Amino acid sequence: MNINGKDYRAIWLSADQVTVEIIDQRYLPFDFVVEPLRNVNEMAIAIKDMHLRGAPCIGVAAGFGVYLAALEAQKKEDWQSFLNQAKDLLLSTRPTAINLHWAINRCFSAIEECHSINEVIKITKKTAQNIADEEVATCAQIGQYGLQIIKELAQKGSAPLNILTHCNAGAMATVDHGTATAPIYAAFEQGINLHVWVDETRPRNQGKITAWEMEQNNIPYTIIPDNTGGYLMMKQKVDMVIVGTDRVAANGDVANKIGTYLKALAAHDNNIPFYVALPSSTYDPQLPEGVHSIPIEERSTQEVLFIEGKDQNNQLKSLQLFSNQAKAANYAFDVTPARLITGFITEKGIFKPEELKEKLK
Amino acid sequence: MNINGKDYRAIWLSADQVTVEIIDQRYLPFDFVVEPLRNVNEMAIAIKDMHLRGAPCIGVAAGFGVYLAALEAQKKEDWQSFLNQAKDLLLSTRPTAINLHWAINRCFSAIEECHSINEVIKITKKTAQNIADEEVATCAQIGQYGLQIIKELAQKGSAPLNILTHCNAGAMATVDHGTATAPIYAAFEQGINLHVWVDETRPRNQGKITAWEMEQNNIPYTIIPDNTGGYLMMKQKVDMVIVGTDRVAANGDVANKIGTYLKALAAHDNNIPFYVALPSSTYDPQLPEGVHSIPIEERSTQEVLFIEGKDQNNQLKSLQLFSNQAKAANYAFDVTPARLITGFITEKGIFKPEELKEKLK
Repeated sequence: MNINGKDYRAIWLSADQVTVEIIDQRYLPFDFVVEPLRNVNEMAIAIKDMHLRGAPCIGVAAGFGVYLAALEAQKKEDWQSFLNQAKDLLLSTRPTAINLHWAINRCFSAIEECHSINEVIKITKKTAQNIADEEVATCAQIGQYGLQIIKELAQKGSAPLNILTHCNAGAMATVDHGTATAPIYAAFEQGINLHVWVDETRPRNQGKITAWEMEQNNIPYTIIPDNTGGYLMMKQKVDMVIVGTDRVAANGDVANKIGTYLKALAAHDNNIPFYVALPSSTYDPQLPEGVHSIPIEERSTQEVLFIEGKDQNNQLKSLQLFSNQAKAANYAFDVTPARLITGFITEKGIFKPEELKEKLK
Repeated sequence: MNINGKDYRAIWLSADQVTVEIIDQRYLPFDFVVEPLRNVNEMAIAIKDMHLRGAPCIGVAAGFGVYLAALEAQKKEDWQSFLNQAKDLLLSTRPTAINLHWAINRCFSAIEECHSINEVIKITKKTAQNIADEEVATCAQIGQYGLQIIKELAQKGSAPLNILTHCNAGAMATVDHGTATAPIYAAFEQGINLHVWVDETRPRNQGKITAWEMEQNNIPYTIIPDNTGGYLMMKQKVDMVIVGTDRVAANGDVANKIGTYLKALAAHDNNIPFYVALPSSTYDPQLPEGVHSIPIEERSTQEVLFIEGKDQNNQLKSLQLFSNQAKAANYAFDVTPARLITGFITEKGIFKPEELKEKLK
């Protein structure tokens, strides 16, 4: 994506070929910080503590994590057992996103027949880079399919076309283009008159990243509290909803950032199309349904009780929002039942929930 | 309500009989500040800038505002025109809550036949105090009716009984007891095992006041982001929802804090009873329906873009949450259609939406 006029991915292998660099999203939109990651432990911390986030981006990061582990394993006596420990470490970082499992398994499948650590290094590097490049191509393709939907809606309705999105399923959540934002970027490039309602997305306010992405690309947007979307839909100020997802079950149930289910209910109640954009790697055909079966991450309640922002001196600061004794809960995701979803925008086409099994197998 | 072991109302006439005192809610839960209001202009600012808030509390404040205006009018040449200006000023403070209109009209009806400003002072003082006392009695009665519902649910389900509430319809939003919280206080006093899910309620985080009220009264509670309620309902971790309201239309459509509609949709989707608690003064029989007819206040977008909290030195500070160029929208209320509401808990009994016209006329 375009950042201050320069083209960036959210994660890349640096010129030295042994360091992975990421845009550290903890400082966005206030500061643009690139963090170098030099071993698997640093990568695991970056994933777990959300220096980067978003299911597809987590998958790519895990792939590069396996490569960093392979580089370290070279110096270990038992490189195989080091790699296995690294695998467990990476798998333990975030429980909900399926892309993490998918990318790690892909790397380990690729090295199954390797007999030397040098071979492992070569193959994991290639695999991680392939995953990243494929993710970019996949998101671009999601953008092209989603563009068709936006074009049709734009022809029917009055301008601008209002699109609501929750959390950040943008370039920063993938590697480039985004999932939910890919159709928005593609439509804006084609000159379609659109405007994006950006959900704040408490407690971590990923909406600030989506807003920043829109801003960097000159796309008109408005930030709204998570409470607002229902009212806007009732007042016919939303023409479509597009969100990303962390895992889609075989039947089309969708795990995504907490609060997605509420927006899907409101869209359904007001006959507004509700789309989920995903690379097919986010589809989990092993899970028959999602409401009862997708594991939901519980994060630290500090994320609810404190908030970060910029003070008058442009310093990042944290404030306590509730009383000293306050108790909170912090479920990171919810599950939206397939019955509330109009369609899935994937790199293989646009599908109804009931078509996923056949089309994404 | 109990605050640090002492009994308080949210607003009262001070011992000098010419000053109205309020708990300044801008500083809760961090600091307990009592603000003296000495003229109608100070009262109008307190209402508009939310030193106090909550539909019933706003009504009482407006009543006392008319009394403060009468005291000032005494020193004016044309006291009648001063009073009329004061009326317009008070009416202009907040557009959505019907209690404001109701209380102001009640005061002005009471002085219609007055021929002297001294008479006006005497009658407005009495009327404002009556409104406050009646509000307290009304909320206590709402508590008793609501208690019946909670008792029945507690007998059916497993302990604790989980009640979700949005915004603050507590003692601080009324004069005492609260509307949505009155049944909770009553049930807790009877020893019913309950737990309250407190919605944060962005952008102004009135949940921090509800949490503080629960804490002061030793009632178990957990703060959740506004995004979380749907997930909890799907997971059967909510047994009932009780909210307050700023205006109920004749058909039972409910204006309440933005985000209420989303919770009502989720409750409906999961067969969870959704109750609205109100004094009958919040009912507006003049308005046939609410979705299109209740005016929705738009507040400053600074309330979305900045947030207040306590820093490490126990100082109240403000932080910027989004980029410097960020744009936001700030609708303060939404309207929940009557079809999503299980019942209305009033001081006159518990009613279905279709019964309101008959029972609250």
